[in-house]
Amino acid sequence: MQGTRETPPQSAAYASTDRTMPTRGAQKASYDKDVVHAILDEGYVCHLGFVRDGAPVVLPTLYGRVGERLYVHGSTGSRPLRMTGETDPGLAVCLTVTHVDGLVLARSAFHHSINYRSVVVHGIAHEVTDPEERRTALDALVDQVVSGRSADSRPANKKELAATAVIRLDLDEVSAKIRTGGANDEPEDLALSHWAGVVPLRKGYDAPVANSDLEPGIEVPDYLAAL
Amino acid sequence: MQGTRETPPQSAAYASTDRTMPTRGAQKASYDKDVVHAILDEGYVCHLGFVRDGAPVVLPTLYGRVGERLYVHGSTGSRPLRMTGETDPGLAVCLTVTHVDGLVLARSAFHHSINYRSVVVHGIAHEVTDPEERRTALDALVDQVVSGRSADSRPANKKELAATAVIRLDLDEVSAKIRTGGANDEPEDLALSHWAGVVPLRKGYDAPVANSDLEPGIEVPDYLAAL
Repeated sequence: MQGTRETPPQSAAYASTDRTMPTRGAQKASYDKDVVHAILDEGYVCHLGFVRDGAPVVLPTLYGRVGERLYVHGSTGSRPLRMTGETDPGLAVCLTVTHVDGLVLARSAFHHSINYRSVVVHGIAHEVTDPEERRTALDALVDQVVSGRSADSRPANKKELAATAVIRLDLDEVSAKIRTGGANDEPEDLALSHWAGVVPLRKGYDAPVANSDLEPGIEVPDYLAAL
Repeated sequence: MQGTRETPPQSAAYASTDRTMPTRGAQKASYDKDVVHAILDEGYVCHLGFVRDGAPVVLPTLYGRVGERLYVHGSTGSRPLRMTGETDPGLAVCLTVTHVDGLVLARSAFHHSINYRSVVVHGIAHEVTDPEERRTALDALVDQVVSGRSADSRPANKKELAATAVIRLDLDEVSAKIRTGGANDEPEDLALSHWAGVVPLRKGYDAPVANSDLEPGIEVPDYLAAL
């Protein structure tokens, strides 16, 4: 329209769709690519959903991110991976990553909640057959867990590669959802004597435990100390 | 048959089905009720999968266990809860709970893994309409996060109850999967100079952070110190 201002340049964001538009808690939703990438990069375990015989199946599995692509791998015999290879044009999946950050205790039972950050990705998973992309994906899957580790391990050999299926899911229909902050009680509940606040989850790792069959003299690598 | 010994009394276990029988890693699977209950009771966030317009959806949500029943709650407007109420005889779901216990670093990229405990529940979710069962479920959902908390909070009032849907999923078609221990490298890789072992995840909570609007003089309750 005449007289209206030009749309400002869009920041990098995923377009929202009917599936990624929340029916409630819309203020918690984000389509910002940086927000989505940061949540994905902090994790390495996702919950992968697919449909088998008309019913949903949700399995925990590792993932790796390379730019706008997520990779999942597994035995060539595992169900979602086999189904992806057998389904044309690929397998409809939903891949969800969730970080729980804190327990939110309100005076009212109703307003109890969890502080969390999650990403939900909808799309069609495709089997990766290109040898170079498979190598990239497998390195990414290891490095997603421990950055730098793929370069400090014996790469997969032919037999191992033949036993491993890799599937790709493009980041296209994606949303993040984030809850932060304290308890949001009703005004009339603020004077109640129940404690209210947040119990943050402790994050991190304990000291590495060497394999009992580790050759003597092999030190814990620096990239583990960085965890 | 004559001469064969009688079957010993079955320990309490869920019957395995085609859906809960793993295609691989069968040694990691368990149908023992105590094992399943212990994994469920250690958590409070699940990933709930359902099918919408033929495609899978996986959402993180809280759950509570009461005996052989799991409960999930949410706004009456949220998709899976609304769909459960509208679907006869209920909504096919898959509810998965996963605890990550450690990172398993092998000498070979291929044998990298995660130590974890997970439970996968398949079944039909039904909306709970009985007022007493709804109360029990809502208390269980709060107590699943912090044991004893439901008794120390203002119970839901009529308006809040009217805005809350509760669905039930019976523990019937259930399996657990557990990986523990160190890296399982190939014998020919044991002499490689890469460090191998497990990095355990640190579990627990940091000190509670009181709400900024908390009345002065309300101490952190004992049941939080027990976390």
